[in-house]
Amino acid sequence: MNDFMAAATDEAKKGFLEGGIPIGAVLVRDGRIIARGHNKRIQEDDPVLHAEIDCLRNAGRIGRYSDTVLYSTLMPCYLCAGAVVQFNIPKVVAGESENFVGARDFLISQGVCVIDMDLPELKDMMREYIEKNPEIWYEDIGTL
Amino acid sequence: MNDFMAAATDEAKKGFLEGGIPIGAVLVRDGRIIARGHNKRIQEDDPVLHAEIDCLRNAGRIGRYSDTVLYSTLMPCYLCAGAVVQFNIPKVVAGESENFVGARDFLISQGVCVIDMDLPELKDMMREYIEKNPEIWYEDIGTL
Repeated sequence: MNDFMAAATDEAKKGFLEGGIPIGAVLVRDGRIIARGHNKRIQEDDPVLHAEIDCLRNAGRIGRYSDTVLYSTLMPCYLCAGAVVQFNIPKVVAGESENFVGARDFLISQGVCVIDMDLPELKDMMREYIEKNPEIWYEDIGTL
Repeated sequence: MNDFMAAATDEAKKGFLEGGIPIGAVLVRDGRIIARGHNKRIQEDDPVLHAEIDCLRNAGRIGRYSDTVLYSTLMPCYLCAGAVVQFNIPKVVAGESENFVGARDFLISQGVCVIDMDLPELKDMMREYIEKNPEIWYEDIGTL
């Protein structure tokens, strides 16, 4: 695991310790993390506060995203992929997509470079969470 | 203009009076408005707080969206369309798409029913705003 995905994983674990869904994200520019975020649906009772959305919110109004890379512990869903496409973020690195394939094909169809690190540690973490909290998970991805 | 689009327009105007981008949205269920929102990029320095995202945030964790309709004064961008697709909102009503065609074709390709009311009042409001505030507008749609 590289440093950026490790930082996204730290965010996921922070969210879990807060009682939330363990998904984390970081935004990188020029080899430096400029924002971090994690899923806060439960913590803030906010259905749109996915990890990537929280991260982009925390980045603030940076204007251009053309030299950024978005790291997420899990393949982005359509909400977060829509943000990537709208803001012209050229590259997404996901920790895994085994537990959720998300909007991977949509991102690729829009010309976004998508890398799936397929990391066993992240697959185990998410699988365990989904098994123990199916209702929260299916609420989060809009399939209740 | 029907009552729901009138309520979305009121939100847009409220945002404008706050110094923000005049785009508003409401979420409707069973013929009743269950949430309202407007673009708050400027007011809250938040790049993801588009009108539809603010509205969905204000709706809270409603669980299922299959019997909801999202009204927006302007055709949703990819971020907001991504939320619609992820949450399985079946129908979007836009006040206009002349100033911004947004992710209309994406929504339709995903099976979302999209209605464009093509309202002169909303087209005039948005055109005037974009003409006077091009930098803010192009920042908002990620094309700076």
